[in-house]
Amino acid sequence: MRRAIYPGSFDPITMGHLDIIERSARLFDEVVVALLINADKQPMFTLQERVEMIREVVPWSNVKVDTFGGLLVYYALEQRAQVIVRGIRAVSDYEYELQMALMNRRLAPGIETVFMMAAEAYSYLSSRLIKEVFSLGGSIRGLVPDAVERRMSERK
Amino acid sequence: MRRAIYPGSFDPITMGHLDIIERSARLFDEVVVALLINADKQPMFTLQERVEMIREVVPWSNVKVDTFGGLLVYYALEQRAQVIVRGIRAVSDYEYELQMALMNRRLAPGIETVFMMAAEAYSYLSSRLIKEVFSLGGSIRGLVPDAVERRMSERK
Amino acid sequence: MRRAIYPGSFDPITMGHLDIIERSARLFDEVVVALLINADKQPMFTLQERVEMIREVVPWSNVKVDTFGGLLVYYALEQRAQVIVRGIRAVSDYEYELQMALMNRRLAPGIETVFMMAAEAYSYLSSRLIKEVFSLGGSIRGLVPDAVERRMSERK
Amino acid sequence: MRRAIYPGSFDPITMGHLDIIERSARLFDEVVVALLINADKQPMFTLQERVEMIREVVPWSNVKVDTFGGLLVYYALEQRAQVIVRGIRAVSDYEYELQMALMNRRLAPGIETVFMMAAEAYSYLSSRLIKEVFSLGGSIRGLVPDAVERRMSERK
Amino acid sequence: MRRAIYPGSFDPITMGHLDIIERSARLFDEVVVALLINADKQPMFTLQERVEMIREVVPWSNVKVDTFGGLLVYYALEQRAQVIVRGIRAVSDYEYELQMALMNRRLAPGIETVFMMAAEAYSYLSSRLIKEVFSLGGSIRGLVPDAVERRMSERK
Amino acid sequence: MRRAIYPGSFDPITMGHLDIIERSARLFDEVVVALLINADKQPMFTLQERVEMIREVVPWSNVKVDTFGGLLVYYALEQRAQVIVRGIRAVSDYEYELQMALMNRRLAPGIETVFMMAAEAYSYLSSRLIKEVFSLGGSIRGLVPDAVERRMSERK
Repeated sequence: MRRAIYPGSFDPITMGHLDIIERSARLFDEVVVALLINADKQPMFTLQERVEMIREVVPWSNVKVDTFGGLLVYYALEQRAQVIVRGIRAVSDYEYELQMALMNRRLAPGIETVFMMAAEAYSYLSSRLIKEVFSLGGSIRGLVPDAVERRMSERK
Repeated sequence: MRRAIYPGSFDPITMGHLDIIERSARLFDEVVVALLINADKQPMFTLQERVEMIREVVPWSNVKVDTFGGLLVYYALEQRAQVIVRGIRAVSDYEYELQMALMNRRLAPGIETVFMMAAEAYSYLSSRLIKEVFSLGGSIRGLVPDAVERRMSERK
Repeated sequence: MRRAIYPGSFDPITMGHLDIIERSARLFDEVVVALLINADKQPMFTLQERVEMIREVVPWSNVKVDTFGGLLVYYALEQRAQVIVRGIRAVSDYEYELQMALMNRRLAPGIETVFMMAAEAYSYLSSRLIKEVFSLGGSIRGLVPDAVERRMSERK
Repeated sequence: MRRAIYPGSFDPITMGHLDIIERSARLFDEVVVALLINADKQPMFTLQERVEMIREVVPWSNVKVDTFGGLLVYYALEQRAQVIVRGIRAVSDYEYELQMALMNRRLAPGIETVFMMAAEAYSYLSSRLIKEVFSLGGSIRGLVPDAVERRMSERK
Repeated sequence: MRRAIYPGSFDPITMGHLDIIERSARLFDEVVVALLINADKQPMFTLQERVEMIREVVPWSNVKVDTFGGLLVYYALEQRAQVIVRGIRAVSDYEYELQMALMNRRLAPGIETVFMMAAEAYSYLSSRLIKEVFSLGGSIRGLVPDAVERRMSERK
Repeated sequence: MRRAIYPGSFDPITMGHLDIIERSARLFDEVVVALLINADKQPMFTLQERVEMIREVVPWSNVKVDTFGGLLVYYALEQRAQVIVRGIRAVSDYEYELQMALMNRRLAPGIETVFMMAAEAYSYLSSRLIKEVFSLGGSIRGLVPDAVERRMSERK
């Protein structure tokens, strides 16, 4: 059985994330969407809200949602995962991801990092950009799942 | 009539900005240099000072200076502009600009973003770098318009 | 009046090209799609066929099709154009384009190069890739205008 | 069961390739190393020799070696593979790989492309570079499997 | 006599830094490792501790350690240095370094910046990443000199 | 004594090359401009003509001109050089250069590669681009030394 970890802050989950989750769930026996605890200072949604939203919008039965603290690779080892999945969009993404992946391989050589491309329709999406557009009054319909859009609107 | 928006913080305006403004003013019927309100926390110059400096150093009659808040594309629609002009220097610039341009196209498909290259003599300039060099006692002559250099010196 | 040149080999024209042409035609009074004579050794279509295909698929009245030899900027001067339009997709594109644009500015300082982004749906398209996929039996429906696909199929 | 295709020319196989094959073989149930027929004009080794060398140096039982012509994704469909594995080294690699992966997804949406990083010790390796160094009399020990080095030396 | 400056924060010095220092010390008559005063807000180690650690781990007799404030190029002029040495790892590094080097050349045309590559084994290292991994409980053995690792452990 | 090798095809030498040579000659005791024998198929100038042109335009007494075949690092060892100097312009340059430098370090660990930036005024220059512009009738004045321009004109 092969288990993959898809780590992130997911504040909030976007259509780009959802696309990577769906595709990972076809490649591996189990995918754990793993939210980093205390990743950012002032999140829009609490960790608990973010976990709930992901559970609400992810229909695939082999996808679990979890939270973790500390080093990602140690969490992966604990979970007996073999793979870390990362979505990549742009070159700058890629550079940073490469650096992290090399460090992670050194810390835990048995854990592999694989990169999957975001679908081109979502190539410009990030949680940060969505929050920025939303806070300035722009429409985010179609960029986040409907349930997330609703929650964001209530928050206004 | 085609109106272009050239948005930014311009804290302060550099010779690189001025070069892009001059060249835009030849390509479009009207260019609005649009300063983002409250863009950054602790600007060197107030919004009003920055507007004044740009007015002082821009001699082209089809260039206006204005300020805006909220989403750039909504401001562009309001101004009945068809184009957003962005200067690009380096790859990292380009990546971020591409992301913004794709988001902007989604928000307002009728507004086009065009990229113009900074002249090679100004390829390393940014307002941030100029402020850093200036604050450490370095000469910025020739990197900003004379009027800006004078104001910065008074500020010391 | 502002006239823009959109140069290329167009062997054959793709949906990505067509998208840039449409958007340029909204920004400038006239757009000349300019095919480079003898650009490549063994084109799939003759220069004449490529001109015909572009004429067939371009419906905008302010777009002309022409051919040129020699240096692009000298052709632009001859045409009394003020602008060269280039579509950009990826970083490697951008690097080469920057180099050419700086050289062109040196050769003809009055001619401006502006860059427009290919729509994300077409971000991976190139004439070369389309010919490769086609020659290996892959479907290119939706990647080139229908009239081009028909001509390519007749060619098989 | 998940089957992955690792395509290439492998003229000859390098330690960088071998590293990706080993790591893929841990992630997927079966890995098919697939040599493109007639990829390049004047290979150093014939297709048959390249297949033999890979068989000789690959000890993992879930790795097969095969050859294919035509479009990679059609071959992957035929093989009932779900995944195409690509090694990435540098930014330029990445750009081209992204373009191909987007095209492949369009041609066969059910086939996923995943990227794995070459180990940093092999980050500068390519078959082309190895052949160049070898032909100029440089040592390639440790950059290709011993069996490959031996064959190259006999070729001299 | 040619003197080179190798500037940085060195909070703390890594094996990647040490590698660049060793190689610079072979190329130039004297190398000054120059720590920027007050570079960052909340360093892990005080300036004095960082100077001590570098002195402890650098065995080459033509390497000095010093601190500086203000503009790097003015410090270099004061030190009668002809060269600034910078290590480069990734593309994003390179972009920023290029910008700084062009600005520095303008401020002091007689001072040359040369770039040296980090060894591939250290290509993913940075002081920031090491502090992050360490603070999350990961092993940093082999990524920093032993004396630095010891000091970091005492700090825990 | 430190001797540096500045290798290339120099077909022909450009102002960008000359700038790197001048700056290298200030940093190292001796600089050998080393022309690769038989590098390209159909050069514009013979190896002998290229050597003559470089001798004609290089006024610095510690710069020698030489030719070499085979592997660059072996030539460097033979010359008892410690350094290979490479000019870098753009990101794509940098990627390839990095790959070569890592390979060269492996082949001859005692030879260091240092990178110097082309002056921004020459950042878009290459021998290939100059030949292309020249062959299409464009002016290359100021992009190559006068003596080179004269020789190119005679060649027309």
